[in-house]
Amino acid sequence: MHSLPDFSQGAAFVRGRYVPIAEAAIPITDWGFLRSDAAYDVVTVWDGAFFRLDAHLERFFESCGRFRLDPRLTPAGVAAVLEQCVRLSGLRRAYVEMIATRGQPPWGSRDPREAVNQFYAFAVPYVWIASAEQRERGLHLVVSDVQRIPARSVDPRAKNYHWNDLTMGLLAALDAGGDTVVLTDGAGHVVEGPGFNVFCVDERGTVVTPAEGMLEGITRRTVIEMAQALAVPLQERALPAGELRGAREVFISSSGGGVMPVTRVDGRPVGDGAVGPVTRRFVATYWAWHADERLRRPVDYGSRAPD
Amino acid sequence: MHSLPDFSQGAAFVRGRYVPIAEAAIPITDWGFLRSDAAYDVVTVWDGAFFRLDAHLERFFESCGRFRLDPRLTPAGVAAVLEQCVRLSGLRRAYVEMIATRGQPPWGSRDPREAVNQFYAFAVPYVWIASAEQRERGLHLVVSDVQRIPARSVDPRAKNYHWNDLTMGLLAALDAGGDTVVLTDGAGHVVEGPGFNVFCVDERGTVVTPAEGMLEGITRRTVIEMAQALAVPLQERALPAGELRGAREVFISSSGGGVMPVTRVDGRPVGDGAVGPVTRRFVATYWAWHADERLRRPVDYGSRAPD
Repeated sequence: MHSLPDFSQGAAFVRGRYVPIAEAAIPITDWGFLRSDAAYDVVTVWDGAFFRLDAHLERFFESCGRFRLDPRLTPAGVAAVLEQCVRLSGLRRAYVEMIATRGQPPWGSRDPREAVNQFYAFAVPYVWIASAEQRERGLHLVVSDVQRIPARSVDPRAKNYHWNDLTMGLLAALDAGGDTVVLTDGAGHVVEGPGFNVFCVDERGTVVTPAEGMLEGITRRTVIEMAQALAVPLQERALPAGELRGAREVFISSSGGGVMPVTRVDGRPVGDGAVGPVTRRFVATYWAWHADERLRRPVDYGSRAPD
Repeated sequence: MHSLPDFSQGAAFVRGRYVPIAEAAIPITDWGFLRSDAAYDVVTVWDGAFFRLDAHLERFFESCGRFRLDPRLTPAGVAAVLEQCVRLSGLRRAYVEMIATRGQPPWGSRDPREAVNQFYAFAVPYVWIASAEQRERGLHLVVSDVQRIPARSVDPRAKNYHWNDLTMGLLAALDAGGDTVVLTDGAGHVVEGPGFNVFCVDERGTVVTPAEGMLEGITRRTVIEMAQALAVPLQERALPAGELRGAREVFISSSGGGVMPVTRVDGRPVGDGAVGPVTRRFVATYWAWHADERLRRPVDYGSRAPD
């Protein structure tokens, strides 16, 4: 005798089945774990609709291509699985992850080409990479000495789980009293933090964001498009850490919270230490764009009552 | 009604239980997967005894320390779990992996310090990173353009799953007709391959192996100790790719097969293209040392019949 599965904490698609998130597991022998041989993407659901789903699907398949992974589903097939995860969870605001892994080759083979690739997905409650209090007062960002894994080693444009550098940098930043961390390229330029891109606003009001060495975030792209729409000048170029420290405003972008303010860097206030007007404009515009029919795709929740 | 679990293909320790390897899975939400936030080690069992178990346990706990992971077991506790995995499998020759992962912090937290770390282990049939035919004729090694993730990004002395660079390099090498790959440090020096260290023998009979930028393999250490015992000169220093290509002999070391010959580098024969005498001596000594009571620790298989 079985009770109905409880998907309220999230739903996952694993080995062809939908299971509650707490039961979702991947084989320990999948090279997605044992070699971090995987690509992924995260799309959010806000007030019952996916935001920029097409852009995330496109990047996911690009990431898979760069790593020679085949999710063995079409983009429409992936979208259907993601929607079913959200539908089962009933979540109106969700963090939805899609993953392709190498799987494993036949026993004895060490040839990745012989592996049967796997596709996994899950939907869980919306993740904010900054808490409500941090979004209100602004984050304290620490510039780390740890060098972000360079593009010559791992292609940062393919979204991947090679996060040890970010995690070690984050631990040191937290110990130092910071809220989060940004890594550099080893030549003094900031590149990215754990799950976010970074921006600053200079004295002339120009927004500056790193051009390479980091994930080309979809939310970063949204910021660039918002800058165009708002007629705010924006430059993509190398961003020295000193310039970040001396900026008038600093903010970060992530699917896990959109645009979020940074008001301290390495213990010192950014500008006057308050959340600045340019940042506030981008935050407001980011959420306003969630109502844009061109960017949202409503989830069909069927007859299930909203949570 | 349940039949007895079949451990003959391998046994795993997952979330406090022993399960057949085919059923062993880790939570999809474990940061060990979602951020490759994990340390591991591999020890082998040969003819019913662990080889150099103490050295692997010591390195495993060092790796955990470097990544601030706590396996929540003592070394003796880990050894007991590994032995139970081997015992259940009945395997006389096994590849035994121990893993510590970050686990996950409470929902909503992004602080790795709040995560409950996890310990996993499994024993499967002995893995050879080179096939019998490759060990007989010698491997064809390709020097990759992909740069090994540098030590400034991820500490290579802590054994970890950040293998995308190795995997992408391996795929290109296989496509080019090679058997396996070695990566460089971005400055023309070879460092390591997927799961192995590399050595060459120069014109004067001196064995040379890279000194940094790679995992300090236990089998590499065994090679260094064998060189001392055999009175073969050995240097640990930067090893230019050109020197590898022009060497008299080349070989690799791994827990997955011990010392294995390389007879071609980038399509051209090493020396006269045959497995050389120094390599043969190290191969023979490696296996002879498996009988050394100081290095082996017999597995107590209990009343279970050998496979």
